[in-house]
Amino acid sequence: MKRIITISREFGSGGRELGRRISELLQIAYYDKEIVEEMAKRTSLSEEYISQVTQQRPVMSFPISIGKSFYLMPDPLMEQHQSIYREQHQIIREMADKSDCVIVGRCGDYILQDLHPLRIFVYADMESKIARCRERGKEDPPLSDKELRQQIKKVEKGRAKYYEFYTGQSWGDKLNYDVCINTSGKSIKELAEVLVKLVK
Amino acid sequence: MKRIITISREFGSGGRELGRRISELLQIAYYDKEIVEEMAKRTSLSEEYISQVTQQRPVMSFPISIGKSFYLMPDPLMEQHQSIYREQHQIIREMADKSDCVIVGRCGDYILQDLHPLRIFVYADMESKIARCRERGKEDPPLSDKELRQQIKKVEKGRAKYYEFYTGQSWGDKLNYDVCINTSGKSIKELAEVLVKLVK
Repeated sequence: MKRIITISREFGSGGRELGRRISELLQIAYYDKEIVEEMAKRTSLSEEYISQVTQQRPVMSFPISIGKSFYLMPDPLMEQHQSIYREQHQIIREMADKSDCVIVGRCGDYILQDLHPLRIFVYADMESKIARCRERGKEDPPLSDKELRQQIKKVEKGRAKYYEFYTGQSWGDKLNYDVCINTSGKSIKELAEVLVKLVK
Repeated sequence: MKRIITISREFGSGGRELGRRISELLQIAYYDKEIVEEMAKRTSLSEEYISQVTQQRPVMSFPISIGKSFYLMPDPLMEQHQSIYREQHQIIREMADKSDCVIVGRCGDYILQDLHPLRIFVYADMESKIARCRERGKEDPPLSDKELRQQIKKVEKGRAKYYEFYTGQSWGDKLNYDVCINTSGKSIKELAEVLVKLVK
C-alpha cells in the first residue's frame, strides 16, 4: 500500500516543517510549493497568482442582479479559479500515483481520500503561532502582535473557505483527520519522530 | 517530571481501552472507575448516583421566577452536585500527587493543568462508535442503530455540558488537548504504542 501523508495546518503552526521532517524520516517525496511550480509550468500563470488563488475561496467578478432576480452569467474569473483547482487536483493525483509522498495543504486529504492517506491536522495556540511567525522573520517592516494575529486569522479564514468550497467539508473539523497535533511549546522534530510511526 | 496522561473521549471511541493500554505500556497507575469507587467510600452516596451526577451538568431543582425577576435561592441539589465535583477534584489531585498515572475523563486535563499532563482527546466517526458499542454487547434488550446513535449523542452532550460547566472550556475543542486521535478503523493497541512515545 502507498504511504501518503497529507498535512493540513494552521498558519504558523509548523505544519510545513512537520511535513518536511516526516518526508525526510520516511525518505519519501515532499510536495508543497512544488505543486505551485508545476502548475505555473503547465499554465501561463505566475506562481504568485496561483498561490493567491489557491489560498481563498473563488469570488465572482460581477454578480448581476436585476430587480429582485439574480442571473448566473458566465464568469471568466470564477471559471479561471475553478480551472486552476482542477489543474491542481490533477497534479496532486499524478504526484501521489508516482510515489509515496507527503502533501502539504491544497485539499490533499480530500483529493486523495481513495488512497487512504494518513491525514494530519497541525495546530497551535495563537501565542505560539505568532512566535513561530516571528522566528521565520520575514516581515519587513516588522509587524506588531496585533497585526500578526490579524494576518494569521486572515490566512486561516482563506484556507478554510477554499477547503470548504471545494470539499464541502469543514476545515479543521477533527473528523476529517486521523490525528490532530498541537505544536504549542513542542519540538516539531520530536513530534515528527512519533507521527511517522502511525504510517503503515 | 511526573508522567500524567489525561484521556477525554467520545462515547464508544475506545478511549478507555486506549488509556488502559497506555498505562500498561508505561507501567503506571490507571484511574477511571476507581475515582467513583473512592468517592463512594468517602461519601454516603452510591457509585451509581455519583456516576450519574458526574456525567452531566448540574441542574437546579427549583428555579424560581416571580414576575420578570429571578431569585437565586439556596438549592440543595445543586450544592450536592458541586460538592461531588469538589470531592472528585480532590481525589484526582491526590491520585496525581501520589504517582504517575493515566486519568480517564472527569475534567482531569483541566484539574491537573499545572502538572502539564499529556492531554489526549479520543474520537471516532459515528459508525465506528456504534460498532464499538455493539462489540461491548452490554445492551439488553439489543438497541437499533438509531437508538444507539441517540444514546451516544446523549452521553456526549452530558459530558460536554459537565465539562463546560466546571472548566469554562469547550469539550472536544482541539486547543484544549495536545493530541486528538481518530480511532475509526484503527487498532487501539497500535495507537497506544505510538502515543506513549509522546510521553516524556
